Amino acid sequence: MELDPARLTPREARALFQGGLVTPTSGWAAGWAQANLIALPRDRAYDFLVFAQRNPRPCPVLAVTEPGAPFASIFDGDLRTDLPAYRVYRDGEQVAEVTDVTSYWRDDLVGFLIGCSFTFEAALLEAGVPIRHIEAGTNVPMYLTDRPCVPAGELSGPLVVSMRPIPAQLVPVAVRVTSRYPAVHGAPVHVGDPAALGIADLGTPDFGDPVEVRDGELPVFWACGVTPQAAVMRSRPPFAIGHAPGHMAITDARDSAYLVP
Amino acid sequence: MELDPARLTPREARALFQGGLVTPTSGWAAGWAQANLIALPRDRAYDFLVFAQRNPRPCPVLAVTEPGAPFASIFDGDLRTDLPAYRVYRDGEQVAEVTDVTSYWRDDLVGFLIGCSFTFEAALLEAGVPIRHIEAGTNVPMYLTDRPCVPAGELSGPLVVSMRPIPAQLVPVAVRVTSRYPAVHGAPVHVGDPAALGIADLGTPDFGDPVEVRDGELPVFWACGVTPQAAVMRSRPPFAIGHAPGHMAITDARDSAYLVP
Repeated sequence: MELDPARLTPREARALFQGGLVTPTSGWAAGWAQANLIALPRDRAYDFLVFAQRNPRPCPVLAVTEPGAPFASIFDGDLRTDLPAYRVYRDGEQVAEVTDVTSYWRDDLVGFLIGCSFTFEAALLEAGVPIRHIEAGTNVPMYLTDRPCVPAGELSGPLVVSMRPIPAQLVPVAVRVTSRYPAVHGAPVHVGDPAALGIADLGTPDFGDPVEVRDGELPVFWACGVTPQAAVMRSRPPFAIGHAPGHMAITDARDSAYLVP
Repeated sequence: MELDPARLTPREARALFQGGLVTPTSGWAAGWAQANLIALPRDRAYDFLVFAQRNPRPCPVLAVTEPGAPFASIFDGDLRTDLPAYRVYRDGEQVAEVTDVTSYWRDDLVGFLIGCSFTFEAALLEAGVPIRHIEAGTNVPMYLTDRPCVPAGELSGPLVVSMRPIPAQLVPVAVRVTSRYPAVHGAPVHVGDPAALGIADLGTPDFGDPVEVRDGELPVFWACGVTPQAAVMRSRPPFAIGHAPGHMAITDARDSAYLVP
């Protein structure tokens, strides 16, 4: 019997990832919030929290681990093994993409869970807004923009966005629905013109897979929790671990925990 | 000609406070967000940001200064002089209440501006909800509760709440209006029973002035940005500066900047 990924519990999904399954998590464990991971040495963690405070759209912090602890208040699993895939950085360069970072984990690492726009996708679907990358079974396309984040200490870098093509008549619905989830990126940062964000070609995303934008659809851009990793690549802290873009931490928090009235 | 405090600009109000005027700021500079101040040495600042992340209702961070800098992104004044009054703490003990902390300021102090419920009072008044302490021209009453905040590092302490008596039939309006301002404490944390929060006597607030609760009114409690100072008193960092409760930083950010859809 094939399990429907949307109907898995967070614990069931994490067990599959711990077992080695590698997949983007969009559409998985519907109703449960997903999160980006960035783990930094304790002596870089303050700069990151200030960076997040100054850039709340891309970097809404959902949880902060104790130094070295591989779990968080909203994640009753093992942050070193229970995501589908990870990226490891030394001096801002990606040195590995692996499914288990136990051998890389350090006692001084602080893990930050950052809201992910996959969290509001169930609400978009319920509102009748189609999501192309779920239909296609691919990863969401993500792009580096030419918009700088507000720096903090030694951290700076560009805003990263995810893109979903939305039928023009449904753009207001998509804005309205997602604006009620500010902790998972909230309303779009831009509608319609990739060039306005410095994106030259929607067909070649910097992370994830391209999707078709059809006649009558507009590309709609949301702030993305890969932004911390772009800051790592730009600012070159000695060490960092992130999730592989689109391959998220599935948390034990309900989507509804991040819904504002 | 008497100036109406509600009609002052933030700059005008700050100039009066810099000149020595001491007054609670509820009702001042209507339409402009007000903020709590807590300033801590840089080596205590990380714990505070994690404490704020874990206790977002009482500690919504609106801005973080550079170490030693007495200004912030949303405060184009001097944080050492432009609040009506300050409290200075050594090892958790209040050692001074002054109108100017220039002589106490240190190069390693990081200032945090924390959302203040005075920010949503204009919206409450517009919605027809009376505010007793504004009518009375007194400071809002604030209380230490028996609810512990989630600790972070060396910081722990109780939730502090502000209280406004609201006519019972207007409680839903008050909840609805304030819930749209999560960055300035949002919806109430409790309606009706002070004992449920460990408050023995509404007539003797821990900070601010008592107000009358009339027949047909319920005491309604909101999380309060004095909570960081309660954590300072409990956790005893070597040094800290806060505003005098109710005597806030009037910022250059509009109330509407913190309004969610």
